[in-house]
Amino acid sequence: MHHDAQPERSNADDAAGLTEAALGGGLERVRATAPLVHNITNFVVMNTTANALLAIGASPAMVHAVEEVEAFVHHAAAVVINIGTLSEPWSEAMRRAVETANAAGVPWVLDPVAAGVTPYRSAIAADLVARRPTVIRGNASEILALAGGTGGGKGVDSTHGSTAALDVARRLAAATGSTVAITGEVDHVTDGSNVASIANGHAMMAKVTGLGCTASALIGAFLGAGLAPMAAAMAALTALGVAGEVAAAQSLGPGSLQLNLLDQLYRLDRTILTRYGRLK
Amino acid sequence: MHHDAQPERSNADDAAGLTEAALGGGLERVRATAPLVHNITNFVVMNTTANALLAIGASPAMVHAVEEVEAFVHHAAAVVINIGTLSEPWSEAMRRAVETANAAGVPWVLDPVAAGVTPYRSAIAADLVARRPTVIRGNASEILALAGGTGGGKGVDSTHGSTAALDVARRLAAATGSTVAITGEVDHVTDGSNVASIANGHAMMAKVTGLGCTASALIGAFLGAGLAPMAAAMAALTALGVAGEVAAAQSLGPGSLQLNLLDQLYRLDRTILTRYGRLK
Amino acid sequence: MHHDAQPERSNADDAAGLTEAALGGGLERVRATAPLVHNITNFVVMNTTANALLAIGASPAMVHAVEEVEAFVHHAAAVVINIGTLSEPWSEAMRRAVETANAAGVPWVLDPVAAGVTPYRSAIAADLVARRPTVIRGNASEILALAGGTGGGKGVDSTHGSTAALDVARRLAAATGSTVAITGEVDHVTDGSNVASIANGHAMMAKVTGLGCTASALIGAFLGAGLAPMAAAMAALTALGVAGEVAAAQSLGPGSLQLNLLDQLYRLDRTILTRYGRLK
Repeated sequence: MHHDAQPERSNADDAAGLTEAALGGGLERVRATAPLVHNITNFVVMNTTANALLAIGASPAMVHAVEEVEAFVHHAAAVVINIGTLSEPWSEAMRRAVETANAAGVPWVLDPVAAGVTPYRSAIAADLVARRPTVIRGNASEILALAGGTGGGKGVDSTHGSTAALDVARRLAAATGSTVAITGEVDHVTDGSNVASIANGHAMMAKVTGLGCTASALIGAFLGAGLAPMAAAMAALTALGVAGEVAAAQSLGPGSLQLNLLDQLYRLDRTILTRYGRLK
Repeated sequence: MHHDAQPERSNADDAAGLTEAALGGGLERVRATAPLVHNITNFVVMNTTANALLAIGASPAMVHAVEEVEAFVHHAAAVVINIGTLSEPWSEAMRRAVETANAAGVPWVLDPVAAGVTPYRSAIAADLVARRPTVIRGNASEILALAGGTGGGKGVDSTHGSTAALDVARRLAAATGSTVAITGEVDHVTDGSNVASIANGHAMMAKVTGLGCTASALIGAFLGAGLAPMAAAMAALTALGVAGEVAAAQSLGPGSLQLNLLDQLYRLDRTILTRYGRLK
Repeated sequence: MHHDAQPERSNADDAAGLTEAALGGGLERVRATAPLVHNITNFVVMNTTANALLAIGASPAMVHAVEEVEAFVHHAAAVVINIGTLSEPWSEAMRRAVETANAAGVPWVLDPVAAGVTPYRSAIAADLVARRPTVIRGNASEILALAGGTGGGKGVDSTHGSTAALDVARRLAAATGSTVAITGEVDHVTDGSNVASIANGHAMMAKVTGLGCTASALIGAFLGAGLAPMAAAMAALTALGVAGEVAAAQSLGPGSLQLNLLDQLYRLDRTILTRYGRLK
């Protein structure tokens, strides 16, 4: 089995290029390339993450054994590291996957779930941040915790608004070289100098477990399809926000929302994204 | 991050107070306090348990690493221990979580899945029972096994009726100080002297995996919101039974039931509980 | 707890007997016996596999601890081994379960997820094949990899058609004594001399994660109900294909398909199987 060559990175990271990527161009690239996204993620969301990646058009795999994680990264178009249900052999697998990804030029996403809530979790998150993720995606409490700020949410839920964390995110991005995405009522993406905001989504999405994890995985799909970090994060958050909004309008509650969201990710296209996407 | 003070326990455990808690008062307290429920549970139900807790109004977290489990308990309003997919590092994490909860006065629920089916599982369940759970919730075969009776279901399914196990449950409660809930066609809750019964639910619920685990987690939510053990168990089982009944009436099969149940937990209120709740 | 006697194997493995089993007889036996199916499977599909087994009428259990896996096999009517999210303690549990099953005459299914993609995975799959599964079920890339052919899919997805792998499957069956099922656009089942094909299913099923794993688990249910290997594989793949086809006709996307499929497995009967089943 050969190591898939990484697709050429898009360099259209001017505002028009980013908007084009977020409102259809990125999605079409995911569908055309079906990137293999290698996830080391938490037990709660493995099924829903795999389904979201399939629905958007990517090819998901969940592989975490230290015996094979490095070999598997060589097949992947992107890697997603999510520390939700952390434990020792898994944190070692995460480090190995990330080192391999960095050496091979495979982009990777860090989802620092509940960073700041326990010292163990904060230390592993900090170690991973130091290994320079391509994109970091968290809620405001997680991003504040990574930056050494007040940090610490209520378990896995944020106790801070996303806009309050934006300045910290910008500094974190500048310090690490990572693109940083903060999700919340409004999502923000920054590479340290530029900032983009996405005002899609629906309040009921907070009642479905793991949609933040889905957002991180979708960023992996867009990176794996060759988008540059800002474009990948914007495209993923716009896709999830728009699909969630359309799905929520059809849902009696969070149970039906969970599945309608997968249907809408599958049915998403340039027309729907352009009609509903609220970027600035 | 501060340790959330435990809410004052309700002492309205007379019959009128219990009925009020089960038919609306408890639910309103969960929604008002959004208690953080720390679960060490099995892989099969992590996603559905988290979603049920979100739907009812609680804040779920799944944390099991021995390196952080004690630190996390200090943030929790309640802990739920479920031995469904048991293994060694997890059983050690369960013991640590329970010791920490006991020391800190955090209430905890034991779900002794498939106790009695293998010696390993029975031994760990017995060890946890000896650590005095606030509430124990199981099917009849599990409760019989805990009490050293004939015990042992068919894998995770009960081969005994819930009413047959009620005397044993009453003695188990008296011996341990735990409130014991037996779920089945009719659910029973006892603290050793008092007994309450809930005759809600629908036969199709047995075709959805892990609804017993959901029941245990919901008891955690009501304990975390400050209800006393009898009230918490009754409120949780009434909520699940009523939501399941309403959901089953809308469902073609167990797939749609699984999601309709989440929708109905989310939409549940005092009016629906009062209309459909069958307590005695 | 007694060791359930294994039901007598059906020996109706002539063409008429196989068709009868696949178009209703097998399903009725599953519903009549509710076989306990012991799964050691991957984290992604545990919930959906358990729900599919319940929907078809079996009793699922997920047990993997080395401390109890052998004891549990003695209660099981069939064992399903799925290497999707492999790691060391789990591979040891798989070996122990399989040895116990072989010694006790409990039939078992191997699902060699992503065999051929990493050396670690290929080695464990080869070791399990050498222990003579009753049935092996994989996609074409996995079956080719097991046979030492070109092998290796794109992560967990096949890069080969099922028909292309049929000759290899027939030789693998002849060499190992296992019945081999290759699933894809058309499913094929062979015991080395006979071949049956099932042309049911729907393209959207590839957008729901883990339906191959569901297929393997359902084969376990039919084996556990006493069907011979060819009959069990044909009955399971027909049931899943027909239920999936009916479900897809009602689904807007893969989210609703996932749950409609469970509903249709639950509602499946001889009339629906006979009307939609496409066997040859």
